[in-house]
Amino acid sequence: MNLTSKLINTWEDRSRSILPLDPVWKEKARQRLLNQTRPEGSLGELERYVERLVAIRKKEKPSLSKKRIIVFAADHGVEAEGVSLFPREVTQAMVYNFLSGGATINAFARAINADVQVIDMGVDCEFRDEKDLILKKIRRGTSNIRLGQAMTEEELYQALEVGWEAAHTAKEEGVEILGVGEMGIANTTSASAVIAALTETSPENVTGRGTGINDTALNHKIEVIKDAIHVNKPFLTNPFSILQSLGGFEIAAISGCVLGAATLRIPCVVDGWIASAGALVPIHLNPSILDYLFFAHESQERGHRIILEELDVKPILKLSMRLGEGTGACLAMSILDAAIRAYNEVATFEEAKVARKKYE
Amino acid sequence: MNLTSKLINTWEDRSRSILPLDPVWKEKARQRLLNQTRPEGSLGELERYVERLVAIRKKEKPSLSKKRIIVFAADHGVEAEGVSLFPREVTQAMVYNFLSGGATINAFARAINADVQVIDMGVDCEFRDEKDLILKKIRRGTSNIRLGQAMTEEELYQALEVGWEAAHTAKEEGVEILGVGEMGIANTTSASAVIAALTETSPENVTGRGTGINDTALNHKIEVIKDAIHVNKPFLTNPFSILQSLGGFEIAAISGCVLGAATLRIPCVVDGWIASAGALVPIHLNPSILDYLFFAHESQERGHRIILEELDVKPILKLSMRLGEGTGACLAMSILDAAIRAYNEVATFEEAKVARKKYE
Repeated sequence: MNLTSKLINTWEDRSRSILPLDPVWKEKARQRLLNQTRPEGSLGELERYVERLVAIRKKEKPSLSKKRIIVFAADHGVEAEGVSLFPREVTQAMVYNFLSGGATINAFARAINADVQVIDMGVDCEFRDEKDLILKKIRRGTSNIRLGQAMTEEELYQALEVGWEAAHTAKEEGVEILGVGEMGIANTTSASAVIAALTETSPENVTGRGTGINDTALNHKIEVIKDAIHVNKPFLTNPFSILQSLGGFEIAAISGCVLGAATLRIPCVVDGWIASAGALVPIHLNPSILDYLFFAHESQERGHRIILEELDVKPILKLSMRLGEGTGACLAMSILDAAIRAYNEVATFEEAKVARKKYE
Repeated sequence: MNLTSKLINTWEDRSRSILPLDPVWKEKARQRLLNQTRPEGSLGELERYVERLVAIRKKEKPSLSKKRIIVFAADHGVEAEGVSLFPREVTQAMVYNFLSGGATINAFARAINADVQVIDMGVDCEFRDEKDLILKKIRRGTSNIRLGQAMTEEELYQALEVGWEAAHTAKEEGVEILGVGEMGIANTTSASAVIAALTETSPENVTGRGTGINDTALNHKIEVIKDAIHVNKPFLTNPFSILQSLGGFEIAAISGCVLGAATLRIPCVVDGWIASAGALVPIHLNPSILDYLFFAHESQERGHRIILEELDVKPILKLSMRLGEGTGACLAMSILDAAIRAYNEVATFEEAKVARKKYE
């Protein structure tokens, strides 16, 4: 076994080391929810989120005030196959847009008082010393997955590490909730390939219209994904090798970040289709990681509902969005923040002298 | 025709005077959305909300920064029938809880930076000079609808006026988006009766568990509602007389407030089941009012989905909540605020020098 294989083994070990949430903490949260001045269960799904948030943070009154969205950006070799409506240069242009605060994620983040961190994982250009851009470029775009593996094992390892480090930096900087998003022209193709391979689903069922392609282009995209899975078949032996063969640098960084966040007990909001592909990799090695994740919304990408149902997770929002950038994660975070504030701040029946139920 | 009949006619006229939104403004919003650095349609439902918000406000860049939730509180004579899990005194106790900032709506409002206004419409107690409580008591609770009409025509008129005035006060105080919520033990019974009568639906189909009653209590509640509709049959001739016969003071205030908000072009977020009952009254006279309303969430109350589908409206959230107080409206407002901020702030393709689509 070579060095990088050993390093990838480290990642499998890291994935497997995550423990399910402690039921004692969830029960503690449930008891406090029951004592608050509300009919039992009246906050619906929010109560389940609160129980998990409390058990993740292991705090009586966890705060989610310090919020961060990380946007991992990278290009994709498969863009050359004409799978996206937009040209490759848009990845770079959107990175500049994020940095100048002009993108949708910036507006959403300002609305909920989150910070936005942009990490160049492999955009096809040379950035200079852009203010606020974190330069972690692995390579100027993956190789074309229709022709072979997206990246080397060494590159996969590096990309995972960047995500892992980003979670650690967040922890050091006092971030209390993380959202993972991405930017990368053609990355729905890569994400769909990863998900098809991981879940052993036919590409037809999990491939969607991305930025809005028509039927002809969709059929072409499905063919490209089928070819990519066929040509990479010998390598698709475990979640991390699937990621290496069909993924992207930003998707791998999301896998690393999600796992880092779980390890550090930072609740992590998974944005949409592409972020879900990244999250699925460690989840496939250890489903306990799900306990630490919140799926922001059901994306308009056609496979997303299927995946979420298979995982038996309810996304927080369902607004037919399909933008990426962490935009869904940002909106969902504001719901989680309100839920945890209610948990922390609402009076108990005793405190407020509110009568309990007449009948039991 | 007596004086109050004439006044109620005024309300029918007010309802009918609301015009559908100007398609020119909606188109203006659509064009700006199309020019922003996002794939076409990628904000899903949010884009429909933005189009309506722009057309309601008739502004190039409307702001939703100043947010207000109004909680209308009142007691219900039908509480005597044992339809709720909680005793009548809880209405009063919860009003004190709102005033001291200890309820869920207060925590949610703090999270999104909204103010909360509490209006006593008919709580069964005498409040003194409570700081921040707006005293508009019509009577200390409606009459028992199982035995006859909930209120007199004069009382209905007064309650509608309070809601109307609350919308006008909001306008004067610069409020840019309103949420309507309520508190009143037994008010799901009243709301279900109003909705059953308005929509000519069997009470079985629209009556839910309120604060969480069991099957036996639910069957009893349905019987009470059937009796209420039977005994009031001669009066159930139009939306406002249905409201007078089966409604509550807080529900009538919501009808007046929703209509006032539409008249003043303030976007209004309708909370849950009970707020929907209030909103349905003017909507039944004039469906154009729907253009000015945003339904916050699909409540866990079993009839809510049916009603929303009949109105062909998609609620913003679906979190199995059933609390009231304006809590759903508050969460939904934060989504609308983020959407409008994206609309106001995101760069166009030209501004950000982002390439448009390769293929058309």
